[in-house]
Amino acid sequence: MKALVFDVYGTLFDVGSLVEVCRALVPEPEAFVSRWRAKQLEYTFWRSLIGQYRDFWQITTDALHYTLKQYHLTTAEEEQQRLLGAWLRLQPYPEVRAALARLKHYRRVILSNGSPAMLEALLNNAGLQAEFDAVLSVDAVKIYKPAPQVYELALQHLGMGREEIGFLSANGFDVVGAKTFGFTVYRVNRTGTVIEELGITPDAIVRSLDEVATL
Amino acid sequence: MKALVFDVYGTLFDVGSLVEVCRALVPEPEAFVSRWRAKQLEYTFWRSLIGQYRDFWQITTDALHYTLKQYHLTTAEEEQQRLLGAWLRLQPYPEVRAALARLKHYRRVILSNGSPAMLEALLNNAGLQAEFDAVLSVDAVKIYKPAPQVYELALQHLGMGREEIGFLSANGFDVVGAKTFGFTVYRVNRTGTVIEELGITPDAIVRSLDEVATL
Repeated sequence: MKALVFDVYGTLFDVGSLVEVCRALVPEPEAFVSRWRAKQLEYTFWRSLIGQYRDFWQITTDALHYTLKQYHLTTAEEEQQRLLGAWLRLQPYPEVRAALARLKHYRRVILSNGSPAMLEALLNNAGLQAEFDAVLSVDAVKIYKPAPQVYELALQHLGMGREEIGFLSANGFDVVGAKTFGFTVYRVNRTGTVIEELGITPDAIVRSLDEVATL
Repeated sequence: MKALVFDVYGTLFDVGSLVEVCRALVPEPEAFVSRWRAKQLEYTFWRSLIGQYRDFWQITTDALHYTLKQYHLTTAEEEQQRLLGAWLRLQPYPEVRAALARLKHYRRVILSNGSPAMLEALLNNAGLQAEFDAVLSVDAVKIYKPAPQVYELALQHLGMGREEIGFLSANGFDVVGAKTFGFTVYRVNRTGTVIEELGITPDAIVRSLDEVATL
């Protein structure tokens, strides 16, 4: 293994940290965030299949509008901006900072659905930008995970064999996409989530990034 | 309008009719069916994007296995077959039979994610097979809705202009796919569901098939 490629949302950063910001603005903040996230991902799949790309900020905004309507909420524009802005200030999972430092002998790259502006703000706010060799966004290929064009981006950037690239994600669709593409895939499974039933399995399952260093 | 193309699951047939069969076998049958259906669709999107098609029976089976695990259920193989078999005996929505008869001056075609065997059994069990000119399945193109190749199937079969084809679906991804492809799209919205926020809107929204006859 010569390089590690990291997914961002749900893998390095906790989407659950949106719940605190939502608490003041919506009822059932946990369920709200979960629906918002599910709709956001659904829109990435649909737009990829119909060939009508919009960047992840637009998709996140559209998914917020949908979810607010589902909850019959008429949230003011300013408050909506506060909810959206929380995507730029997600918290990294507790072990991430130290684990990344311990993995510095690998080339470390981000590969994310996030737009370049979202990723830049997120990494800067968390003070993690210096840990990565490159921050690659699907925006370069205008299609979302798990389309193979996305994983090709990392392969092109790294210029090495697919099997020499370790890919880390907590998202089922991303594990399936990266594994089908040919990377060595580590599924990050912090919460004991059920493993997907597609007959496409990760090379290893880790409970946190700490376990990656020991593999 | 010269022809009408119908989606099947959720549009002509009520996926909610699975709930009764589930009641004896799983707790929270409504939530179970809703998760099973969501996972089934998610797998169609993922498999389409990674180019690893499996037919809808396989996908429905995989999604059932996933959902049973989510609920920590170890359901016997025979009972799993009973749950799967219920997809072949879904109930049509109450107005469907009479409404289809009233629309018989149109060429009427099915266009569905379902496998040919699933669709044949479902239409036979409901006694609706004679209402349709053709039953078109995504299985012919090995990719799921909302990929344009699927809608192309109906266009090729009908051999007329896209705008002369009225497309009916209750599924958001299908409305978006058919509208992007160029059909005249009627969203069937029996329950007042929130309309999707992608900036791709149906030509009309109907509460049931009865309203289609009056348009």
